[in-house]
Amino acid sequence: MTRRLRLTVAYDGRPFCGWQSQAGKGSVQDALEAAFATLNGGVRIPVHGSGRTDSGVHALAQSAHADVPRTSRLTLPGWLAALNAHLPPEVRVTRCQWAAPEFHARFAARGKRYIYRIWNSPVLPPLEIGRAWLVPHPLDLTRLRAAAELLTGTHDFGGFAANRGVPCPDTVRTIHKIDLKGRPGGLITLTFEGDGFLYKMVRLLTGSLVRVAINRAEPEWLTGLLEPPQPGAPRVKTSFAAPAEGLYLARVFY
Amino acid sequence: MTRRLRLTVAYDGRPFCGWQSQAGKGSVQDALEAAFATLNGGVRIPVHGSGRTDSGVHALAQSAHADVPRTSRLTLPGWLAALNAHLPPEVRVTRCQWAAPEFHARFAARGKRYIYRIWNSPVLPPLEIGRAWLVPHPLDLTRLRAAAELLTGTHDFGGFAANRGVPCPDTVRTIHKIDLKGRPGGLITLTFEGDGFLYKMVRLLTGSLVRVAINRAEPEWLTGLLEPPQPGAPRVKTSFAAPAEGLYLARVFY
Repeated sequence: MTRRLRLTVAYDGRPFCGWQSQAGKGSVQDALEAAFATLNGGVRIPVHGSGRTDSGVHALAQSAHADVPRTSRLTLPGWLAALNAHLPPEVRVTRCQWAAPEFHARFAARGKRYIYRIWNSPVLPPLEIGRAWLVPHPLDLTRLRAAAELLTGTHDFGGFAANRGVPCPDTVRTIHKIDLKGRPGGLITLTFEGDGFLYKMVRLLTGSLVRVAINRAEPEWLTGLLEPPQPGAPRVKTSFAAPAEGLYLARVFY
Repeated sequence: MTRRLRLTVAYDGRPFCGWQSQAGKGSVQDALEAAFATLNGGVRIPVHGSGRTDSGVHALAQSAHADVPRTSRLTLPGWLAALNAHLPPEVRVTRCQWAAPEFHARFAARGKRYIYRIWNSPVLPPLEIGRAWLVPHPLDLTRLRAAAELLTGTHDFGGFAANRGVPCPDTVRTIHKIDLKGRPGGLITLTFEGDGFLYKMVRLLTGSLVRVAINRAEPEWLTGLLEPPQPGAPRVKTSFAAPAEGLYLARVFY
């Protein structure tokens, strides 16, 4: 008999190959499963995340679940402390909750919030290494804000998705909002909230928005990428992906 | 013939043995002098900082100067770009200015601002590793603020100084202010401004203030440390130093 434990997890993405286990590489999921196994007499407990994050992508609050034996005497604070004691410091469980057996970190997720950090100056402060994307070109934030408006709403975002082996059957998603904070010459933060995001979608949205904000592309180029492909023609896609290190999974909504 | 170049320098303290050169170890000063030498045909140009920072201590705006040959054709933006091109990313020159020949980064400094970051929760967020001091105990901020008041002003701070070989002949300093921001359970920031700080003084002030804020010591203990020693008796000193990683040299005043 097991009981479903829901976890909120923060991590620094740099030392990991990403959330998902990959042969021969260290993932956040591996780190969590190793901690659970240690606490479970060496027997594996699978950990299910709300979704993958790529190598170098950070999480302020990734969500996951795992089924732990009812025979365990650990309380919620006990699980929190015990897991953290067996995790590397770059991964921290920030919250443990008991969940209903039908709760599923991935399938129950109603949406996500991502934050993308841009450092807009010629020099990247040393304490921003691996935590922001250095964009030395002048950024037109009025243009960036208007372009972000165009992308908000329900669209076919197939033009803002990287391939991950199998094609995604349904590429329609709803972006509830894209918030822009900051000022040219310093830190600029983009916050994306939506019901779901395709593979590399936030990085492709950010990279393409910045391309418009530095006047290398017109807003119409973005709206063109939202058009469905002509029958028989290949999908037009953007390849301007912002780097992983500026991206943070900030919240999963249920 | 040389011309005096004034530098503002930011660094992540972790990869370095501190600001000051030490045999067999990599310092920030070494990194800067290596960059200058490369730009000066291999000939050393000494770099003078406003003062030392210890291993692991960060700088948002350390100040330094160096005398560069007048024969160099580099403009100020040229020096900035050229130095950064030859520095590791953990050290960045954020500003270059020409200075009068009598300007001296150390002897002309009128004061300094340091920031100390405390993370007051049981769990240190992964992105705070090496950047804040984890204090899991409940902090009484009213008590901390009152204790900081006691330390503000002109005092003999010999009780808040570590020994660095030779004793410091004059241990009287003025702390203009100690600002406290934040809330229990999250990030708490202490900002110190003063005309000068003794060796490890900010870390000893912070560690001792926290000791009062967690009710392990009374405010009178702090004021006792400010008392001059009785003739013939040894100086009573605090040994509660906050760790290096929470400390940031934020500004040097001239």
